[in-house]
Amino acid sequence: MYKVYGDYHSGNCYKVKLMLHLLGLESKWVAVDILKGETQTADFLAMNPNGKIPVLQFEDGSCLWESNAILNFLADGSAYLPSEPRLRTQVLQWQFFEQYSHEPYVAVARVIQRFQGMPAARLEEYQVCQVRGHKALKVMEQQLQRTPYLVGEHYSIADIALYAYTHVADEGGFDLTAYPAVRAWLARVAGHPGHVGMLD
Amino acid sequence: MYKVYGDYHSGNCYKVKLMLHLLGLESKWVAVDILKGETQTADFLAMNPNGKIPVLQFEDGSCLWESNAILNFLADGSAYLPSEPRLRTQVLQWQFFEQYSHEPYVAVARVIQRFQGMPAARLEEYQVCQVRGHKALKVMEQQLQRTPYLVGEHYSIADIALYAYTHVADEGGFDLTAYPAVRAWLARVAGHPGHVGMLD
Repeated sequence: MYKVYGDYHSGNCYKVKLMLHLLGLESKWVAVDILKGETQTADFLAMNPNGKIPVLQFEDGSCLWESNAILNFLADGSAYLPSEPRLRTQVLQWQFFEQYSHEPYVAVARVIQRFQGMPAARLEEYQVCQVRGHKALKVMEQQLQRTPYLVGEHYSIADIALYAYTHVADEGGFDLTAYPAVRAWLARVAGHPGHVGMLD
Repeated sequence: MYKVYGDYHSGNCYKVKLMLHLLGLESKWVAVDILKGETQTADFLAMNPNGKIPVLQFEDGSCLWESNAILNFLADGSAYLPSEPRLRTQVLQWQFFEQYSHEPYVAVARVIQRFQGMPAARLEEYQVCQVRGHKALKVMEQQLQRTPYLVGEHYSIADIALYAYTHVADEGGFDLTAYPAVRAWLARVAGHPGHVGMLD
């Protein structure tokens, strides 16, 4: 059985939880508190030298880290990861987009607004997050105007990766009214059989 | 034949150039000047709605973007991307690490120092890049103390991804003296048959 080291409020960790649930895989969740420094202990750094959650631990004790790498491992051979090379790498394209152009703004704005209560020292950064987060949402909107899921006709781990923080984007001050295709896609993902919410 | 839209000074674009060279694949390079706004034109945004280089264009005109997704597409089936699922996703782990924890600091410090000449308005950001860039280099050093390449015994696209900006880290003010395993690995990658330099 897999062990997942994570925090239920983290979108990166939620990706792994949702994937395991959709695949019906059993796992043991180990709660990790970043604020208490639990990702920086010697034991944790032996699992992930980069000191971040989530971490997927195998029965032999070895570990895989980076949420999107974990999604690719778990989904391999399932309907959530196409085997055709062009489609498979389009999934990766959206996952790298998520980590570089979406998460650093949409997720960080949520941390500043919801979890830190908008400290004055981070207001300028919050405004940058708004501009760049909306840019990322527009890129998603364009694709989702054309196809029901990010990579064509089928729900994939590209959608799981981008759903994680987009569905709580309002907690970072993002109003999704201007993104009707994104909103329809959020409902489509949440309506998928086997779906589980972030805090369920 | 592939078309690559890129800039030779960009590490993200260099990844694609190096991969094509190692695989002996022919391609046509189309120079794109970010500073002239060439990634924000309607024609360019039709290829990559996120307005970034590199973009790989296929003969039918369709495109793949995100440097690491392109590496995965090109390397599929070659010795540069293991097919075994654990190894294959360890490659992805290092590529997502590169885009989230390495490139935003090591590459951005290089832009500020080498290409912008250290404007005062970005000095604070530059200092943050130094701290976080060194953190990323330490994570690499730990792995490379144990294995000759980032994913075990063999050169893979994980190495190409991280070589791109690490080998020019000095241009962003990073002194690699404290990272002997990283320096040995840089030499190992550069000595690989079929290697090509960034500006060759």
